[in-house]
Amino acid sequence: MSGGFRWILGLDIGGTNMVVGLVPFEGGTPLGLRRLPTQKEAGGQEVLRRASEAAEDAMEEVFKTEGGGREQVAGIGVGAPGPLDHETGILIEAPNLGWRDFPLRDMVSESHGLAVEVDNDANCATYGEWWMGAGRGSKTLVGLTLGTGIGGGFIVNGELHHGATGAAGEFGHMTIDSTGRKCKCGNYGCLEAYASGPNIAARAVEGIEAGVETLLVQLVQGDLEKVTAATVYEGVVLGDPYAAEVMKETAKFLGVGVANLINALNPDAVVIAGGVTRAGDHLFVPLLKEVRRRAFRSAVEGCRIVPAALPETAGVIGAAGIFKERTFGSL
Amino acid sequence: MSGGFRWILGLDIGGTNMVVGLVPFEGGTPLGLRRLPTQKEAGGQEVLRRASEAAEDAMEEVFKTEGGGREQVAGIGVGAPGPLDHETGILIEAPNLGWRDFPLRDMVSESHGLAVEVDNDANCATYGEWWMGAGRGSKTLVGLTLGTGIGGGFIVNGELHHGATGAAGEFGHMTIDSTGRKCKCGNYGCLEAYASGPNIAARAVEGIEAGVETLLVQLVQGDLEKVTAATVYEGVVLGDPYAAEVMKETAKFLGVGVANLINALNPDAVVIAGGVTRAGDHLFVPLLKEVRRRAFRSAVEGCRIVPAALPETAGVIGAAGIFKERTFGSL
Repeated sequence: MSGGFRWILGLDIGGTNMVVGLVPFEGGTPLGLRRLPTQKEAGGQEVLRRASEAAEDAMEEVFKTEGGGREQVAGIGVGAPGPLDHETGILIEAPNLGWRDFPLRDMVSESHGLAVEVDNDANCATYGEWWMGAGRGSKTLVGLTLGTGIGGGFIVNGELHHGATGAAGEFGHMTIDSTGRKCKCGNYGCLEAYASGPNIAARAVEGIEAGVETLLVQLVQGDLEKVTAATVYEGVVLGDPYAAEVMKETAKFLGVGVANLINALNPDAVVIAGGVTRAGDHLFVPLLKEVRRRAFRSAVEGCRIVPAALPETAGVIGAAGIFKERTFGSL
Repeated sequence: MSGGFRWILGLDIGGTNMVVGLVPFEGGTPLGLRRLPTQKEAGGQEVLRRASEAAEDAMEEVFKTEGGGREQVAGIGVGAPGPLDHETGILIEAPNLGWRDFPLRDMVSESHGLAVEVDNDANCATYGEWWMGAGRGSKTLVGLTLGTGIGGGFIVNGELHHGATGAAGEFGHMTIDSTGRKCKCGNYGCLEAYASGPNIAARAVEGIEAGVETLLVQLVQGDLEKVTAATVYEGVVLGDPYAAEVMKETAKFLGVGVANLINALNPDAVVIAGGVTRAGDHLFVPLLKEVRRRAFRSAVEGCRIVPAALPETAGVIGAAGIFKERTFGSL
């Protein structure tokens, strides 16, 4: 079935960065890995042109070191933000990229003369963690990706759950406080309004503006606009009590979201990805405490809640895995 | 495959009432329907003894009117509250019935000498609506059952999603206001704490105690302990503005919960069951408005949100359907 294929090209297109690499056909660490800024301002065509260039570079490098050639590349898996129709390969809407009804699959396919499959980026990251990372062996997996936004994916018996219109897994817009913080989606109290990177930073700044004394101010030389979630993490590591408090609150909000997903879906694993997981126990201890408080005991006992294992490459690996599963019927 | 079977016995055990009936093998309205109080105080064995008696009565009546006999009954499907292991047939915990690690399947099977399959009652109701009711034809169905508590079920491609420990579908304990109303589960802000029958009544009473003037007081002859969700519904029908307000708030809370489920699971149908759906547009119009406000547009457009079609019999029909699907591999 595999026809002597050695590689699947994985392409992970994000709002800020793109990552591309050659994933071994049987799974494993991608080779020829390239990471480049998306530069979405240049428009969809130009973004894809640069992605294709990076992909060709990656292949050239890998063929040089590993031998073989294009005929050993089975095809390309692409992850992109926003709801997309994985059957037609059309990206419906990606506000972060300014794309709408964009024929992503066909355009990538034409650039390389290879077969292509596409899926949502958070689905790809979840699939990558399930295939090769922290979610290995899980039958019912919930993936949460914390970044500029909060995305997610849900896998049952090895199948991504896409839902009726390909929009499943939007866990960031789960209301956890119906009269709470305003979210950039226009609503109030979404999980994302508390626990995305920019909102962790915004909550930290609100306290500082209200007069809290904290090392965070020095870490940004007094320029509060420079506070990011990474600054908060840095403050936690340096022992700043306020930073620790902000992190603990973040963990509690995430715990509410994770508890909701556990009560609804009863997964055997929840994999959490994103920079904020670097906080380790500062995040996971209070998060687990909140989950235990809010979710059914038997459901919590049957579920491991773990940080992602492939922070840089889950999207690339997952996109390649999705290509393989759809094209060859199994991984 | 069906071996000339004409019937499957369905048994729906609730905290307050039990319903039993003979469901036609090919699906349809149950015959010989019996509804009796559960009288859980008498203990699990006695509850089952009375359920079995009713089941035998039902069979006798149906055989008398329709001809045929026991050999035409393929088996029994049983729905019961609380998480249960549908593979071993053991009910893990049903606080409402005082049962724990109760070998439900084997006990029912022994009583009747027939094969038995068991599942959670909310799963059965969801399955019944999917097989024969408002969810017919759906590929990704979310069922919500509003009663003393709030239960739910989730069907993907004709399969109930049970999760890792059989606890999936506990939509009632989804946090929608993390610092909100206390729930009887011990947490704060569960959907159930706002929109279950007793909590609709409790919210109504709180306003009355705070001095609101309303017809509801007369409807219970001044005895506020007698206010139920049905009283609120009655007030709505009689044009009482306060009752209408309580109903509208209920709809908004439910809308938050439904929006969360739509964003997470992107179903093509959400079926809402329970007495409160009798309020019709008074419930569904503000509910849909809240859902549209909070859920992704493409996901809302791909989803019908409808009242259940089988208010009395979905559980019995669904339990029978689950038995059939597990025993014969298809419906």
